[in-house]
Amino acid sequence: MARAVQNENSLLRKIERIRGRQLASGVILGIGDDAALFRPTSGREMVLTCDWFLEGTHFLSDKHPPASIGWKCLARAISDVAAMGGAPKCFLLSLALPNFRTSRWLDEFLRGLDRASRRFHCPLAGGDTTERNEILINITVVGEVRTGRALLRSGIRAGDIIYVSGRLGEAELGLRRLRQAKKIASIKSPLLRKHLYPEPRVRLGRWLAEKRLVTAMMDLSDGLSSDLPRLCEASRVGAVVHAAKLPSLPKTHLADISDSDALQLALHGGDDYELLFTVPPRKARRIPPLLDGLPLTAIGLITRDRRILISEGNGNTHALPAHGWDPFRKAAKKISI
Amino acid sequence: MARAVQNENSLLRKIERIRGRQLASGVILGIGDDAALFRPTSGREMVLTCDWFLEGTHFLSDKHPPASIGWKCLARAISDVAAMGGAPKCFLLSLALPNFRTSRWLDEFLRGLDRASRRFHCPLAGGDTTERNEILINITVVGEVRTGRALLRSGIRAGDIIYVSGRLGEAELGLRRLRQAKKIASIKSPLLRKHLYPEPRVRLGRWLAEKRLVTAMMDLSDGLSSDLPRLCEASRVGAVVHAAKLPSLPKTHLADISDSDALQLALHGGDDYELLFTVPPRKARRIPPLLDGLPLTAIGLITRDRRILISEGNGNTHALPAHGWDPFRKAAKKISI
Repeated sequence: MARAVQNENSLLRKIERIRGRQLASGVILGIGDDAALFRPTSGREMVLTCDWFLEGTHFLSDKHPPASIGWKCLARAISDVAAMGGAPKCFLLSLALPNFRTSRWLDEFLRGLDRASRRFHCPLAGGDTTERNEILINITVVGEVRTGRALLRSGIRAGDIIYVSGRLGEAELGLRRLRQAKKIASIKSPLLRKHLYPEPRVRLGRWLAEKRLVTAMMDLSDGLSSDLPRLCEASRVGAVVHAAKLPSLPKTHLADISDSDALQLALHGGDDYELLFTVPPRKARRIPPLLDGLPLTAIGLITRDRRILISEGNGNTHALPAHGWDPFRKAAKKISI
Repeated sequence: MARAVQNENSLLRKIERIRGRQLASGVILGIGDDAALFRPTSGREMVLTCDWFLEGTHFLSDKHPPASIGWKCLARAISDVAAMGGAPKCFLLSLALPNFRTSRWLDEFLRGLDRASRRFHCPLAGGDTTERNEILINITVVGEVRTGRALLRSGIRAGDIIYVSGRLGEAELGLRRLRQAKKIASIKSPLLRKHLYPEPRVRLGRWLAEKRLVTAMMDLSDGLSSDLPRLCEASRVGAVVHAAKLPSLPKTHLADISDSDALQLALHGGDDYELLFTVPPRKARRIPPLLDGLPLTAIGLITRDRRILISEGNGNTHALPAHGWDPFRKAAKKISI
């Protein structure tokens, strides 16, 4: 039977089991010393990112399975590395939790974390633990990208075509379903899969960086209507998005919601971790409609005029309000998940 | 007048001001994109560490000046890099805080953080922010060390001499004084200085690594009686510490506490961020009693026998109980500070 830990060392021993194939990834010293040691690959720059994942703010411990919390905290941090065109190399885990969570909950959490770590070839290199009345998680991911090849948010030109990967709104729909549930969600529900187990688009990001097809890129974490303005702001441009082109949810998912709902989900739903990127028109023919089964869809155009517009057809074009997630905006939902 | 922020972007603009001299330190892309980019120096390994600094666990917002919280959250993470013999290169800040803290409190916090960042040549490279009912801080520091020269906890041999830098117990005494205070502590109190503004021993750590004088090293964050067993455990050795040799507090600090209290503070007091290291006897003459004004003191010997003993003179040698800080031990104090 799983037991609560007696001290910090025994907690570290539990965590240490998931270290994965460190050496292959450049980690030459992992958990157990004051810091980890990582040997960078020559000709590469390091991609550095960190991400909060907090009980009550980003997940609910009475609704989210611990394995999903473990998977998702790492997957969403890796998504930031994917968004630069980088490859994840290792991560640090900062974990604060109540003592009663150090037995079964922790084991399940570590199982999900370990699965994501193996799936994305991103071993655990180190971290910090402490006791706390709530579960607090912070993940740092270290990645690598060929020198000079990182894809930034800036660099867009007017006339570039805006693309997204995958489908938009699915994670938000999963969240709605989860909120209606009375207890911890089943891991196997296909409708919840994208909310519980998002897939950072590492392979796509690296492919786009290697092929030099892209002028700018970011990942969609807060929703298209909040993230697209950030991308445009970095390049001092605007955009027109064509509603009809958005890869919103397929009808099979939508028995109980309208087309207009599906559009709202695609525009404002968070947590999709798809990639949003811009491609010069002359390179657009080199973007396939599917890459390894993942749809890549042109959804609009970059404009010199710095407004962010949505065209709903019939000449009906209007400003796209940013209704995605912002933890500090007064009108923001209190809980992002 | 300082104002609370209206959204996450305006918070980021406040934080961005403290980025420091990024380029000189290898940071080629800082705040404002999905991740930061860092160009490693050739022939160096990366030192990676992260550290919690949480309201109520590591600091009290009604006692600790916000500038001290800013300084200390970075200084203690840098101390882990110093403990490997590395040089800090940049850091990531994860900050969660209530909206009412985003005006004056945040400005003061950032002032302290900025000072530490400049003092230790460790610019801000990126981070993550969110709103939360308590102040949560997590710091990741990226450092560098010449390939193969990092000083680990393992590598000690029986007969090695145990050294510590500085004085022990001063930070814990400062904490006692702070607890007695009725309000936010004055930044200028010399008795509180080491508790509020600890100085990671970066220069000493790098000097020891460059000169190859040391078999193992770590920093003292939880107290000698808790940290020395960890150092010994990593090398499967034991130790005898000589009480009389411990660099405890000078009499001037101790008007109201006894010699025995001073010994307890030196053995079990946390937060000193001094370096603990072991030196082979044949190299001991190359360790000066002072390095740039910082005392280096031999306090005991490494033994083959794996116990941790303290010798109080007159043949009175007994086991040294680990009474430092451990957040998960049942008998641990609820608050480490």
